[in-house]
Amino acid sequence: MRIVITGGCGFLGRRVALKLLAEGSPLGRVDELALFDNAPSALPLPEDKRLTLVTGDIADRETIARLITRDTDAVFHLAAIVSGQAEADTDLGYRVNLDGTRAVLDACRALGTAPRLVFASSLAVYGGSLPPEVGDDTALTPQTSYGTQKAIGELLVNDYSRKGFVDGRALRLPTVVVRPGRPNRAASTFASSMIREPLAGQEAVCPVSPDTVMALASPRRIVAGLVHALGIPGEAFGATRSLQVPGFSVSVGEMAAAMRRAGGEAAHARLRWQADPQIQAIVSSWPPVLATPRAEALGFGRDKNIDEVVQAFIEDDLPLQKELAG
Amino acid sequence: MRIVITGGCGFLGRRVALKLLAEGSPLGRVDELALFDNAPSALPLPEDKRLTLVTGDIADRETIARLITRDTDAVFHLAAIVSGQAEADTDLGYRVNLDGTRAVLDACRALGTAPRLVFASSLAVYGGSLPPEVGDDTALTPQTSYGTQKAIGELLVNDYSRKGFVDGRALRLPTVVVRPGRPNRAASTFASSMIREPLAGQEAVCPVSPDTVMALASPRRIVAGLVHALGIPGEAFGATRSLQVPGFSVSVGEMAAAMRRAGGEAAHARLRWQADPQIQAIVSSWPPVLATPRAEALGFGRDKNIDEVVQAFIEDDLPLQKELAG
Repeated sequence: MRIVITGGCGFLGRRVALKLLAEGSPLGRVDELALFDNAPSALPLPEDKRLTLVTGDIADRETIARLITRDTDAVFHLAAIVSGQAEADTDLGYRVNLDGTRAVLDACRALGTAPRLVFASSLAVYGGSLPPEVGDDTALTPQTSYGTQKAIGELLVNDYSRKGFVDGRALRLPTVVVRPGRPNRAASTFASSMIREPLAGQEAVCPVSPDTVMALASPRRIVAGLVHALGIPGEAFGATRSLQVPGFSVSVGEMAAAMRRAGGEAAHARLRWQADPQIQAIVSSWPPVLATPRAEALGFGRDKNIDEVVQAFIEDDLPLQKELAG
Repeated sequence: MRIVITGGCGFLGRRVALKLLAEGSPLGRVDELALFDNAPSALPLPEDKRLTLVTGDIADRETIARLITRDTDAVFHLAAIVSGQAEADTDLGYRVNLDGTRAVLDACRALGTAPRLVFASSLAVYGGSLPPEVGDDTALTPQTSYGTQKAIGELLVNDYSRKGFVDGRALRLPTVVVRPGRPNRAASTFASSMIREPLAGQEAVCPVSPDTVMALASPRRIVAGLVHALGIPGEAFGATRSLQVPGFSVSVGEMAAAMRRAGGEAAHARLRWQADPQIQAIVSSWPPVLATPRAEALGFGRDKNIDEVVQAFIEDDLPLQKELAG
């Protein structure tokens, strides 16, 4: 089978690709894997004849129509402008996160084969005064342009699935911690930085208060969830193709404590607390606790605790991270 | 002040225009009123120097930028492809209902003055397994492309208002009964036809079962609500610019009985019941009962009952309707 990953050179896209190449897909053998992104991968990709890389503009309909060829069985649509940047550059955010998603959906529709599509949505679709239990049934009142664009993407995936144009599923991903690499322009970027940088010997700033509670998932867990989602029959989703996937809840203070347990006093001394009201406001608009019975019934799991997540980062990413820092 | 009405030659747009010309707007004297539509008005417009008519394509950004001029203080965005047609012609529905809405919002944004904008949303944004109380806090899981496009419009109005590009408000309108004129391609069109045609001496078909309960509002009430919405300060909306406006709940059987009370046995004999499972499914996906405490606190009212609504139709529209029928 042929699979396309948009945002394929991004952090999640590349790991989904590596997993699919190594383990196959839940739908069968991977014969061809096309990664699409706006620039080549900064990190190495494996030498694998099945892998092709296409760079271009996700909102360019001709480009995307050429990418999603007749023999495409499945698409992971992960390409996006992150929250902080979509907030600052309204036009770019709408172009990539809305026009781009429509280009992908319409290219799938043009095939006439209703390919499977996994769309990465986000906790940013929630906002405002949230109920104590946030999940599939919560009304979406996003407080950022990014959240708005992801909520619109979910609506489109649902409409296109209902009409039989795609066999879509939209996963509301918790905040991914620990992301490797450098800080990006997501409002959530500090949640990885505050663990990653101190452990790699660099200074970091935490812009929110220690009692801020966040719903997190590790890269391992998110990547496994994205691949798992591909294998679920469309009917199993029931009335909506949007799904809140599990996260675990932890305070930012406890995240710092876990970093200290793993890295000791030297690491801990590299974290500075410096309040940023704008970031605090955005992060506080996200749900601290997720209710995910439907996702659990569909086989999605969650990380045990923040210490396990920090340990996974140390195993998977810290060596390369130290090289980057050096 | 200058006001623009998109869909200005449509049923609601024309009546909003007549009301604004006759009574002024809640924001002050109307000096200029521009009606935009894809075709000239089928019904007569008043001879009024303040009135201009522009025809064109709502999704054409240059056209809309020329329409929403620098001195525009307020916009009613009512132009839309109705539900049945948006379901049948996916591309046209997305072009008018999504691209058109974005064109209007971006033209407003380009002014830099955050004009007031009243956007007509719909009960079609709801769907799936609904809670007993449907209203502002209900998660939107539309079951039609039209409902999807209206839900997306609401998200855009909220994001653009939050960013200060417009001072928007999105009204979820109940099903409007009794619409004058001819049936259109809305799935709800029968709800007007089954009263209008028999009273005007014509046959009509009701495609849903008598026990189907619908949430309705009269044209008088809807038009008054749209104009009222223009006068509400943006801050009064609180966390969301989306608002479920009141409707009254009545069974289709009771609607037929009210038509019989007004038109007698002769009228009643002109109504045939002929089930259409597709229309029944769409109508059943809409909420039968609306919870509207927020709208009521903001001064929106509701019709008393179906007999009053039928009486208003007889007063306002039946004479012209009989001419049409003749």
